[in-house]
Amino acid sequence: MKRIRIVVAYDGTNYCGWQLQPEKPTVELVLNRVLSQLLGEDIKVIGASRTDSGVHARGNVAVFDTNTKIPADKICLAVNQWLPEDIRVQSSEEVGLSFHPRRVNCSKTYEYKILNRRIAIPTQRLYTTFIYYNLDIVAMQQAAVYLLGEHDFKSFCSVKTQVTDTVRTIHRLEVSKQDDVITISVTGNGFLYNMVRIIAGTLIEVGRGAYPPDRMKDILEGCDRSLAGPTALPQGLTLLNIEYEL
Amino acid sequence: MKRIRIVVAYDGTNYCGWQLQPEKPTVELVLNRVLSQLLGEDIKVIGASRTDSGVHARGNVAVFDTNTKIPADKICLAVNQWLPEDIRVQSSEEVGLSFHPRRVNCSKTYEYKILNRRIAIPTQRLYTTFIYYNLDIVAMQQAAVYLLGEHDFKSFCSVKTQVTDTVRTIHRLEVSKQDDVITISVTGNGFLYNMVRIIAGTLIEVGRGAYPPDRMKDILEGCDRSLAGPTALPQGLTLLNIEYEL
Repeated sequence: MKRIRIVVAYDGTNYCGWQLQPEKPTVELVLNRVLSQLLGEDIKVIGASRTDSGVHARGNVAVFDTNTKIPADKICLAVNQWLPEDIRVQSSEEVGLSFHPRRVNCSKTYEYKILNRRIAIPTQRLYTTFIYYNLDIVAMQQAAVYLLGEHDFKSFCSVKTQVTDTVRTIHRLEVSKQDDVITISVTGNGFLYNMVRIIAGTLIEVGRGAYPPDRMKDILEGCDRSLAGPTALPQGLTLLNIEYEL
Repeated sequence: MKRIRIVVAYDGTNYCGWQLQPEKPTVELVLNRVLSQLLGEDIKVIGASRTDSGVHARGNVAVFDTNTKIPADKICLAVNQWLPEDIRVQSSEEVGLSFHPRRVNCSKTYEYKILNRRIAIPTQRLYTTFIYYNLDIVAMQQAAVYLLGEHDFKSFCSVKTQVTDTVRTIHRLEVSKQDDVITISVTGNGFLYNMVRIIAGTLIEVGRGAYPPDRMKDILEGCDRSLAGPTALPQGLTLLNIEYEL
């Protein structure tokens, strides 16, 4: 038996997120079904990041165990022949049997995109969040700085979580603008349930002037979800990549 | 009565193009229906560019006549409240009753986007054409130069056209690449049926080495559709804007 690691890109529009759920289309369900058919075994993938309904990925990571004789690096092209066009495996390689994608130190990078103009652009509606009021990007950049480093991010975690340790480290959090699109780019060693979307929703509140930038410090220190802004819509969010330490 | 000019953006994915067709969803059909409901009159729009099935627009232009008392510049926001989210009117203004969007000199700019990498990216599949073999962008740029200026573009026109005058002028035709995306950007005083998609399809043949760049000259001079490359897929094409001379 060998363990295969795959990097998976998907358009989350038509999926109820990554994780298996009864009676619902999920990315995990489709990968299990297609890999099982391709390899003639009962395949169960384990994903690194269980993205929410409507969230996209350029590079989520998953592993599965198989006895197949297909060379590890060829699985990628073979499985893409059978996947629907909104899921594509970007690469496949063999890893050690002890490798577990959620139990190894890694850094994840997400991008949250906001289309900020007076009138929406239809071709961008599935991959950005449209906001028609003007956002002050400098204020958003000032607020973002308070979140850098290791903190208890309880204020930025959905109350629906079962996690008790809410300390995480954000290595990088940048807000940039090109033409009408504001991009919030964040890299960290792990993210709580809805954490990136709550950070985005709070930065949007700062951008429209509802909170001053230094309110971010009080929100963080308060350790209370109700202090932060709303959870921003899922379609603006893309999991860009996951890097594992050697 | 007054004549209103609107600039219309749409995602062409779910439409059988701009123009009215029996029993089929088209952008013109939706605009007529929604404007008629909004203004309480029988509205019939006249579009500048009758884009094909699956082609997108950032700035198509249309006009319609109305007796409404709604100020011209407010129609845009009002109609967007009722349109499906894959169509958005970007602006509305009053023009002279003699203005006809297809009978006035104008320049149109289209963009054709190709995702050129080994494996497709699902979130780009609706707005680019995916090509997995490597395209030589320098060869494409060399070939593009032959099409600049006034020529008989009969070789680049679908044989299904009813047009007899196939002379057009291309002011600008650029091929550029950023990351994995090749963009063919073309501005001209008018385009024949499928002309941009046949130019894109022919440049792709040059890019993959099937034709040398200077074959473009022979194709153009031959005035025969069968000499040019295939009609490239519609989803890579977007009508960016139409500029009218004063």
